[in-house]
Amino acid sequence: MKSVKNYIQENKQRFIDELVELLKIPSISADSSYKNYVLKTAEAVKLNLEKAGCEHVEICKTKGYPIVYGEKILNKNLPTILVYGHYDVQPPDPLDLWNSPPFEPVIKNTETHPEGAIFARGASDDKGQVFMHIKAMEFMTSTNQLPCNVKFMIEGEEEVGSKNLEAFVKENQERLTNDVILISDTGMISKDTPSITTGIRGLSYVEVEVTGPNRDLHSGLYGGAVANPINILSKMIASLHDENNQITIPGFYDKVEELSKEERTEMAKAPFSLEAYQKALDIETVYGETGYSTNERNAIRPTLDVNGIWGGYIGEGAKTVIPSKAYAKISMRLVPNQDWEEITKLFKSHFESIAPKGVKVEVKPHHGGNGYVTPLNSIGYQAASKAYLETFGKLPIPQRSGGSIPIVALFEKELKSKTILMGFGLDSDAIHSPNEHFGIWNYLMGIETIPYFYKYFTELSK
Amino acid sequence: MKSVKNYIQENKQRFIDELVELLKIPSISADSSYKNYVLKTAEAVKLNLEKAGCEHVEICKTKGYPIVYGEKILNKNLPTILVYGHYDVQPPDPLDLWNSPPFEPVIKNTETHPEGAIFARGASDDKGQVFMHIKAMEFMTSTNQLPCNVKFMIEGEEEVGSKNLEAFVKENQERLTNDVILISDTGMISKDTPSITTGIRGLSYVEVEVTGPNRDLHSGLYGGAVANPINILSKMIASLHDENNQITIPGFYDKVEELSKEERTEMAKAPFSLEAYQKALDIETVYGETGYSTNERNAIRPTLDVNGIWGGYIGEGAKTVIPSKAYAKISMRLVPNQDWEEITKLFKSHFESIAPKGVKVEVKPHHGGNGYVTPLNSIGYQAASKAYLETFGKLPIPQRSGGSIPIVALFEKELKSKTILMGFGLDSDAIHSPNEHFGIWNYLMGIETIPYFYKYFTELSK
Repeated sequence: MKSVKNYIQENKQRFIDELVELLKIPSISADSSYKNYVLKTAEAVKLNLEKAGCEHVEICKTKGYPIVYGEKILNKNLPTILVYGHYDVQPPDPLDLWNSPPFEPVIKNTETHPEGAIFARGASDDKGQVFMHIKAMEFMTSTNQLPCNVKFMIEGEEEVGSKNLEAFVKENQERLTNDVILISDTGMISKDTPSITTGIRGLSYVEVEVTGPNRDLHSGLYGGAVANPINILSKMIASLHDENNQITIPGFYDKVEELSKEERTEMAKAPFSLEAYQKALDIETVYGETGYSTNERNAIRPTLDVNGIWGGYIGEGAKTVIPSKAYAKISMRLVPNQDWEEITKLFKSHFESIAPKGVKVEVKPHHGGNGYVTPLNSIGYQAASKAYLETFGKLPIPQRSGGSIPIVALFEKELKSKTILMGFGLDSDAIHSPNEHFGIWNYLMGIETIPYFYKYFTELSK
Repeated sequence: MKSVKNYIQENKQRFIDELVELLKIPSISADSSYKNYVLKTAEAVKLNLEKAGCEHVEICKTKGYPIVYGEKILNKNLPTILVYGHYDVQPPDPLDLWNSPPFEPVIKNTETHPEGAIFARGASDDKGQVFMHIKAMEFMTSTNQLPCNVKFMIEGEEEVGSKNLEAFVKENQERLTNDVILISDTGMISKDTPSITTGIRGLSYVEVEVTGPNRDLHSGLYGGAVANPINILSKMIASLHDENNQITIPGFYDKVEELSKEERTEMAKAPFSLEAYQKALDIETVYGETGYSTNERNAIRPTLDVNGIWGGYIGEGAKTVIPSKAYAKISMRLVPNQDWEEITKLFKSHFESIAPKGVKVEVKPHHGGNGYVTPLNSIGYQAASKAYLETFGKLPIPQRSGGSIPIVALFEKELKSKTILMGFGLDSDAIHSPNEHFGIWNYLMGIETIPYFYKYFTELSK
């Protein structure tokens, strides 16, 4: 491809500065007090799409945060790529664990990123990766090398379950028609081991509330005589796993896809050092379902994790209280074939059934989505493979990821097209954690690789 | 006793107004941001003691909040009563459950208190009950009916474990010599069933911290592969009780005093309606150790309750995170003969021993104290009995309480004297809960009854 490397070299600093500007806006979709910042981010995305050569760029209202849409249609007979991403970010807390403020981006060199990395919430997930596509688009339009039609759909509610995306997609099926969907919201194995995510897990996220007495009680006067919601909630949560760390919800595993011995052997070839993994997390040992490796546990097996728990007195000092209520946020990662709505129902009825008399239990389904697998023989996967070979000098490894991008399954259902997950982040990016960052090398490699995907996808589609 | 009823009638409104003033000061000892209010409260107590006729009133410095001391020594040959109480209060949260601000006292009539009750944090525990003693003192001095020597010791750290009281008592043994200690920091069975608390439970309060990975992790990428501190903490907490709701800590029950069949039959005579109890708490059923009644579970049996738990994302919306840390505040109520320091050690070593590999566990002992039993044949108990008979027209029922006043055991050890727990509060006072209140009838009955204790204790001591 003509001069993509040079173009990036010439514009490198501007590419970084423009991303830094976007990262300064705290677009936390989970916290309504940040509403204006989220909306401001949508405006910024619109401007950047227009600068990159998109047409008919529009901030599309939804019941929640808007979806930014833009397109460049060259010719109805050419294939069309739909790029999806999100401009909202995870909440940054716990703030005290950040080495620099989450919305004041700084560039620092690290062992993994001697060329520097941008530290900020959203740097990798997903503002940085969305920006790779916008800058690749800019390159292709400004050098007249855009080989096909492009549509951008950048939403603002991915971190809270893409609540309003389904309605939007259904109402805009015409406008969104495409031949392949391209998403960069995942990672690759390492800087010298490119990989394409070919499988993602589904998700069911619920919030539970356990109510005991109708008011907080003195633990001396009532302790031992009434059900303590925290003790009960702990018991209930503990009972959700058996001694092999399998989930005890009846029917939970019924539809779980069991991989063949061959597939598992293939997976096991991905470079992985358990020692390095444990060292990086400062844990003595890993922990999970008996009979599966770490990479299997977080990719092809469903899981249940408590993401938050609270109840009683959590302030400074001591309070001898039996609280009236205790709460937990619980999420389950699902594998292909598990239906998130069915699993949510199974969880709800099981969790309610194990509540002892003396407490009331409420389960509030939060959001979710199904898992997905990309066929390796699809044109999209082949085009992506060739693109990586071009820029990395080696073929990417197909990889199952433990994360969830529920909308991928939604797209297949509503738009009847396959999704290619070209992620340029690294596990060490600390997405969803303090000190999230995105390597400048990764950022630029993404910008360089994407245009080749456009090229090969157009060629292979002929 | 000359004119005590009249004196109360004449000064009733002032007695209420003066208490209301004290209740307005938020003396929350657990939260250091309230420090100045706690100190201001000590000043107020000093002034009130002086007004009541105490001499040598002094705000005695400690490493923490000061202890207010005052005395009235008539004659070295007369018996001496030491009155203990505390001017600090529990934190008021959850604030949204209060019907009126916790530090803006209001008087409302209730079913139990047609004569009105004062609603405010500390109304019953313990400012209101301390004030009964101050007003009784005022009556006796102003009418020249004080029959013996009196010493007041009012501390400001009871709700956080009386951290510095032991040192103070040891350093002031001379000044604190007494023949009996009188405390009103407990309740009675009901307005028409006076009772004296003859047994209290000990306490061991600890805080635990479970650490998994060295940073918060994305629950999709790591879920199922690393130990989740919340899931683990829940499992560990759940394992602290067996299927009979007995505590599983090895050695925990070794020194527990087992009551005789006769004693349990005696206890069972106290009026109690399980139906009313459950209705008042809006629970379908009580919950506790198999083989014991509700009154036994919260009085003569040791317990373990989680008073607070927190970890992960507890804000609005959803965050798919595996937190690095999870925490809980856990307290154990102990019965006579259990040593709180020994129990704390047993908890610590057991809790650390059940932590699975893959997490680190830290147990921080918070505070505690031992249980205590008052001998019914003591002069103090006899004097109290006669005092109640005088004002209530019936003998009080000796009752074991589930609460803890660790300093009672401390007093016996350091000052070699017995404590009489003359409490005028009711279970329905909601101490440690939102909408704490103290009945005006109870308040005035306390003021009326206390001088009779002084009278009979002096007579019986001759």
